[in-house]
Amino acid sequence: MTTAVMDNEKMKTFKELESAVRSYSRGWPTVFEKAKGYRLWDTDGKEYIDFFAGAGALNYGHNNDTMQDKLIEYIQDDGILHSLDMGTTPRKKFLEKFQETILKPRNLDYKIMFPGPTGTNTVESALKIARKVTGRETVISFTNAFHGMTIGSLSVTGNSTKRKGAGIPLNHTVSMPFDQFVDDQDTTLYLESYLEGSSTGVDLPAAIILETVQGEGGINAARMEWLKRIEEICKRFDILLIIDDVQAGCGRTGTFFSFEPAGINPDIVCLSKSIGGIGLPMAITLIKPEYDQWTPGEHNGTFRGNNLAFLAATEALTYWETDDFSENIMERADFLKDTAESIVEKYPELKAEARGRGLMQGIAVHVDGLAEEICAEAFKRGLIIETSGPKDEVVKFLPPLIIDEEGLSKGLEILEASIKHVLA
Amino acid sequence: MTTAVMDNEKMKTFKELESAVRSYSRGWPTVFEKAKGYRLWDTDGKEYIDFFAGAGALNYGHNNDTMQDKLIEYIQDDGILHSLDMGTTPRKKFLEKFQETILKPRNLDYKIMFPGPTGTNTVESALKIARKVTGRETVISFTNAFHGMTIGSLSVTGNSTKRKGAGIPLNHTVSMPFDQFVDDQDTTLYLESYLEGSSTGVDLPAAIILETVQGEGGINAARMEWLKRIEEICKRFDILLIIDDVQAGCGRTGTFFSFEPAGINPDIVCLSKSIGGIGLPMAITLIKPEYDQWTPGEHNGTFRGNNLAFLAATEALTYWETDDFSENIMERADFLKDTAESIVEKYPELKAEARGRGLMQGIAVHVDGLAEEICAEAFKRGLIIETSGPKDEVVKFLPPLIIDEEGLSKGLEILEASIKHVLA
Amino acid sequence: MTTAVMDNEKMKTFKELESAVRSYSRGWPTVFEKAKGYRLWDTDGKEYIDFFAGAGALNYGHNNDTMQDKLIEYIQDDGILHSLDMGTTPRKKFLEKFQETILKPRNLDYKIMFPGPTGTNTVESALKIARKVTGRETVISFTNAFHGMTIGSLSVTGNSTKRKGAGIPLNHTVSMPFDQFVDDQDTTLYLESYLEGSSTGVDLPAAIILETVQGEGGINAARMEWLKRIEEICKRFDILLIIDDVQAGCGRTGTFFSFEPAGINPDIVCLSKSIGGIGLPMAITLIKPEYDQWTPGEHNGTFRGNNLAFLAATEALTYWETDDFSENIMERADFLKDTAESIVEKYPELKAEARGRGLMQGIAVHVDGLAEEICAEAFKRGLIIETSGPKDEVVKFLPPLIIDEEGLSKGLEILEASIKHVLA
Amino acid sequence: MTTAVMDNEKMKTFKELESAVRSYSRGWPTVFEKAKGYRLWDTDGKEYIDFFAGAGALNYGHNNDTMQDKLIEYIQDDGILHSLDMGTTPRKKFLEKFQETILKPRNLDYKIMFPGPTGTNTVESALKIARKVTGRETVISFTNAFHGMTIGSLSVTGNSTKRKGAGIPLNHTVSMPFDQFVDDQDTTLYLESYLEGSSTGVDLPAAIILETVQGEGGINAARMEWLKRIEEICKRFDILLIIDDVQAGCGRTGTFFSFEPAGINPDIVCLSKSIGGIGLPMAITLIKPEYDQWTPGEHNGTFRGNNLAFLAATEALTYWETDDFSENIMERADFLKDTAESIVEKYPELKAEARGRGLMQGIAVHVDGLAEEICAEAFKRGLIIETSGPKDEVVKFLPPLIIDEEGLSKGLEILEASIKHVLA
Repeated sequence: MTTAVMDNEKMKTFKELESAVRSYSRGWPTVFEKAKGYRLWDTDGKEYIDFFAGAGALNYGHNNDTMQDKLIEYIQDDGILHSLDMGTTPRKKFLEKFQETILKPRNLDYKIMFPGPTGTNTVESALKIARKVTGRETVISFTNAFHGMTIGSLSVTGNSTKRKGAGIPLNHTVSMPFDQFVDDQDTTLYLESYLEGSSTGVDLPAAIILETVQGEGGINAARMEWLKRIEEICKRFDILLIIDDVQAGCGRTGTFFSFEPAGINPDIVCLSKSIGGIGLPMAITLIKPEYDQWTPGEHNGTFRGNNLAFLAATEALTYWETDDFSENIMERADFLKDTAESIVEKYPELKAEARGRGLMQGIAVHVDGLAEEICAEAFKRGLIIETSGPKDEVVKFLPPLIIDEEGLSKGLEILEASIKHVLA
Repeated sequence: MTTAVMDNEKMKTFKELESAVRSYSRGWPTVFEKAKGYRLWDTDGKEYIDFFAGAGALNYGHNNDTMQDKLIEYIQDDGILHSLDMGTTPRKKFLEKFQETILKPRNLDYKIMFPGPTGTNTVESALKIARKVTGRETVISFTNAFHGMTIGSLSVTGNSTKRKGAGIPLNHTVSMPFDQFVDDQDTTLYLESYLEGSSTGVDLPAAIILETVQGEGGINAARMEWLKRIEEICKRFDILLIIDDVQAGCGRTGTFFSFEPAGINPDIVCLSKSIGGIGLPMAITLIKPEYDQWTPGEHNGTFRGNNLAFLAATEALTYWETDDFSENIMERADFLKDTAESIVEKYPELKAEARGRGLMQGIAVHVDGLAEEICAEAFKRGLIIETSGPKDEVVKFLPPLIIDEEGLSKGLEILEASIKHVLA
Repeated sequence: MTTAVMDNEKMKTFKELESAVRSYSRGWPTVFEKAKGYRLWDTDGKEYIDFFAGAGALNYGHNNDTMQDKLIEYIQDDGILHSLDMGTTPRKKFLEKFQETILKPRNLDYKIMFPGPTGTNTVESALKIARKVTGRETVISFTNAFHGMTIGSLSVTGNSTKRKGAGIPLNHTVSMPFDQFVDDQDTTLYLESYLEGSSTGVDLPAAIILETVQGEGGINAARMEWLKRIEEICKRFDILLIIDDVQAGCGRTGTFFSFEPAGINPDIVCLSKSIGGIGLPMAITLIKPEYDQWTPGEHNGTFRGNNLAFLAATEALTYWETDDFSENIMERADFLKDTAESIVEKYPELKAEARGRGLMQGIAVHVDGLAEEICAEAFKRGLIIETSGPKDEVVKFLPPLIIDEEGLSKGLEILEASIKHVLA
Repeated sequence: MTTAVMDNEKMKTFKELESAVRSYSRGWPTVFEKAKGYRLWDTDGKEYIDFFAGAGALNYGHNNDTMQDKLIEYIQDDGILHSLDMGTTPRKKFLEKFQETILKPRNLDYKIMFPGPTGTNTVESALKIARKVTGRETVISFTNAFHGMTIGSLSVTGNSTKRKGAGIPLNHTVSMPFDQFVDDQDTTLYLESYLEGSSTGVDLPAAIILETVQGEGGINAARMEWLKRIEEICKRFDILLIIDDVQAGCGRTGTFFSFEPAGINPDIVCLSKSIGGIGLPMAITLIKPEYDQWTPGEHNGTFRGNNLAFLAATEALTYWETDDFSENIMERADFLKDTAESIVEKYPELKAEARGRGLMQGIAVHVDGLAEEICAEAFKRGLIIETSGPKDEVVKFLPPLIIDEEGLSKGLEILEASIKHVLA
């Protein structure tokens, strides 16, 4: 049997029964079974190195031993699994651990909201409370932003295909130029001019929402000065600053929050993906106490009380008790950056550039379709890696943060081999 | 120490660290720890009977033994937990089991979409695909409808407080009168007249979305004739019919889908809550093959691959292999109906009426604030039960479907005692 | 030369140079030259009786002698013609005459706004001030309503073809059923139920806007009890009542305002069309003093100071100094009603019914296309009459109010002859 | 009696009976009676020089003798005054004259639409047809744009106070930076980048609408290169270019259309104000034949057939039969420019700059409130002149185009005297 036929057989159930909307099972046509750390295995026993990390949901790798133990023990004890926003022991422990390990040491004062266990849900909750608190409707987002797929989040997302998917016009938002959108122009000047004027056609917004490093948008990392300027503008005009740290947060860029190096203090922070520790659905919204003006139940949802996720999330926070984890990430990040840059230099045919920061990096390949070919080849060779960017032009490195030097090197070797193969 | 002081101490963490939006931990001020079947225990060891079932997410009760075993075994084996929409063994098995146990025996032909693991996500996906397929923007929903809290779902939700929470106008939707909205008038006549006329101010909609029994809206059960008429109107005008079976589905009304007794065949069905079996976040959208016109990835999301949920969900479907489960539910439902009606009769001071069908019933209490007082008293006496309806005027019975006669009787006794106490 | 060829020659300029949007010059393919009272003449000298009255803009007939004299004299004196909302003598005189002749005798207290000289402009201004004063966004309009062609007015218009013309979704409005929309059902019950409930999906509106007799919508005359109920509902819920009297006002139904017989007191009244007396562009918006909360210039426009129109408008108001004019209209109206009813009875093949009140009447012909054929034939025979209604199914009588018995009889004879011809 | 008391007495009717929205009668508190050429007289016989020209509606001055004669003769002959879009002799003559005198000599091929007799109506019609033809919803407008006060036109207007007046959010539009919005940056780069990217949050628009010289926005004249670049971008992305020439057209900048010097060929052109010749309400929309895809009556309105306006409009076009008129305007414009610049230089305390082109110029005074004081003083001294700009900071010169050197000099002397007085 040829591979294609075998693949067909293997993927039959998905092809026949699942909706046409499925995507990852197309690019990676196999059935995954086990996973540990930075490695996965499919039903044929083939091993894969993970440079994808559940699109950022598996920063702590697959099946961390301690987390597994906590889950098993809890289930065995008939611990309450589903609890909406009722009080439960795991919820209590998570709240306390997050306060103690993350917020306090950073001098951050936020109320913690559980908005429903997905990224789009925390974004929707952030937009709602910002609009409520200010009494304004407009929200400013940025070119190449990605914030989610429900209508509220989609309205602050840039991608035109995804926007069209809404089937209705997406309003009450204004898209401003992200850092370096137009070469050599300070894009904050435009933003500020629009807000300064009283006749610019742009209403004073409730909030500005942004990712410090745009993941889906093509690994565009805003400069720290730019982030500071945005915060200044927000303060000057009394606009709430929302950082969507769903993908860039939870250590992805080296610090727990991606905005820490900029020294800014956002009014609202959105976290999801790796906040759940082991890949279980969870999200939180951090809101400065003065803006936590919700009435009880004003935003709700059935799955806000995923106690298994709370357990793993609490365990995951132990990584942040010392600086070791952060230092480790930066070390790996430097190695990744060096390798990415050397690849760019070595293969000028790629017309490529290295991008990103921390363990959120990418190689933008300015030859149509090439990035996708490279990732497809890498998969065959046992590396899970995907593209991002408006034209899927960026090979996106998103390894678990716990990856060791060996794993990282091995993955990068597969990648380089794939590039060579594709260019040949 | 008084109870209030003790409560204060116990709930301190939630009060101090969690956002003001929390609601259930206010009405039920305790910390829950364990749960099994139809019972819960808090950290003080106090036992509660569950007439709430995770707002419908725990139809199969808490911590079903077999499901627990499956989860533990899978975790122990390093089974892949988080997988977006990649192929995995649990996903495959769920697809096959759902096809075989649910769709085939009912002669239903649907593609299965995993839209993100919450109710609001399946609704958003349904609205999107209906708009895409028809090229139309308007969606018709009904008075007292509840479909979720993200902007798309909120726009088809009736509750004015929740709608205001959006902070922006909610458009592209038209609210039509639900069954029996105005006494003695056939509300489908209105709907039909609006669609027939070419000058009625209502555009031909992409879809009509409805719950067969409105849960949050006050346990309003549409009559089967009314549902049939709606389906006829949809066919006549080429409008897609979306049934939101998030709360009323998965056996809640006695059959797997709530619409089965009406003999209708919706174009799109939304399932969440109990589809995950043991209360883990999961949702699916069922779409007739001819309308499954998504492009790959057009709607996506990080937590579409919750493998623990798939395992429990697959196990839960075994309940539907024979008719026994359904018959059991109907038996309990009859008993519940009889008791509810006798309570209504016995306590005329309640100015009450019994409502609902299957194990989704309620007593509408037309004295301001009384329903809430009854539920608060019941909590003190060890019964978890909540209100619904636009004015929180309905005491809502939503026990796990696996509840036995004894549990049901005991719960209803507590309720009656609470009513007596409150009326005294 | 055949008539068609001659028509072609005559209409060449319009066909070649004017936009495809032109409509009346298609149905009435001639070039009009002169007009007096209820008669028009084309360039061939052919005479026409006018049952159209400039779509209601010529209630006082064509070229009233006194009005002509006033215009000529003013022009000869170099009177200022264009003046925005600067003070001018004709503006001053109009304001005083309107106050004295119309408002005072009816005990009505309104501020007079000049919103731009068209019907759609007065409607837009009414919607704006209602939204401003109440701080609410939604406006309720009715099935078959017509309020104008700019986006604000179009959003409260029912006609689906005209709505589609907007090219964008029309929002912030809710369409409720007009009087007798569904047979034998009191449509105010629906409206009231939607407003009473707190979970109906319909926000508390800023205003309800309606025409007492829907002209474009098919000559649907609301019953006086219905209008009273609407006013009651507005008062109960603190909603502003806007009467769009653009077509039904200025005496069209027998009284100056069409709502006088209902004894209601709207918060805002829109007037245009015949307010200008001789057919010159003019409009006013009447606003109760407590709601006249505009800031200066908040709504403006270049042509708010059409002094020729003010002159003719002031002269036209002399018709209302005594009751004679009103009585005359009612006399003609009775004759018209009797004739319309006898035609309906005499020609059952028309499947027709008589509708309307005052000199705003129609015969609804329930045979597809027939009403249009009748009007086309009438034109050939020297009668200017048009259709209205969602399917152009209503032959619409809108003669100048100054028409005498002879003119009315003659017109009706032509109409009957046309019906006979078409039916033959 | 003091002047204030006298003013009070004179303006009593307006203060008591007219809506608070009136504005010009506040700044110029008198009652105007007569006007001729570039001069007006009030009821006290006081003479005023007109640097306002009916906000651009009186380019040919007040009460042109020949136009007056035409009007009088037509009225005396019982010419039909009001005719919707029926064929009439004056409409025919206007169409032919416009074709022959304006379009043909400029090699322009447009269908002529009569959209209702106001500026906002032509803009609304332009937006509608552009959206219909392209099937797209978004329209791009510019910072500081002003296009009218009905909801469609307001949605492409920049002024935040006027926008708020809508009482609803204004959507389906994107505001881009006008020429020189940010110092030393080419704003077309931004626009183009937004359209080029597929993930910028800005949908491909139906049209771009702009004024070549922004009147209300503060006399901002776009450079010819900028206009050409905009046209290129429109062509590149298949976007319709709409020039709103309501104020800048009809010779205001020296050529009939304001865009002639740029050598561009817009797809749609909006004209109103001075198109009616003598200040009577009239507007036309010019549409390239390939985009004239209206169905008959899709946009309509009662006052599209203002025959008196057609007569004056036709007469006005005789000004354009030779180049003399245009040359005269340019001569006056040069003189005005020189004087404005010398004033700016002479009075540095004004912190002023001269702006504009043709006879559409201004002095931007960057001292708060000063421009308004200057205009108020000028009024007292017999000069009618108003401010514009987002903060009313621009003294705006808009004299009738027929003004002679003497009139212009005299007006400018009054202005300078007023400046001196105010600065003293």
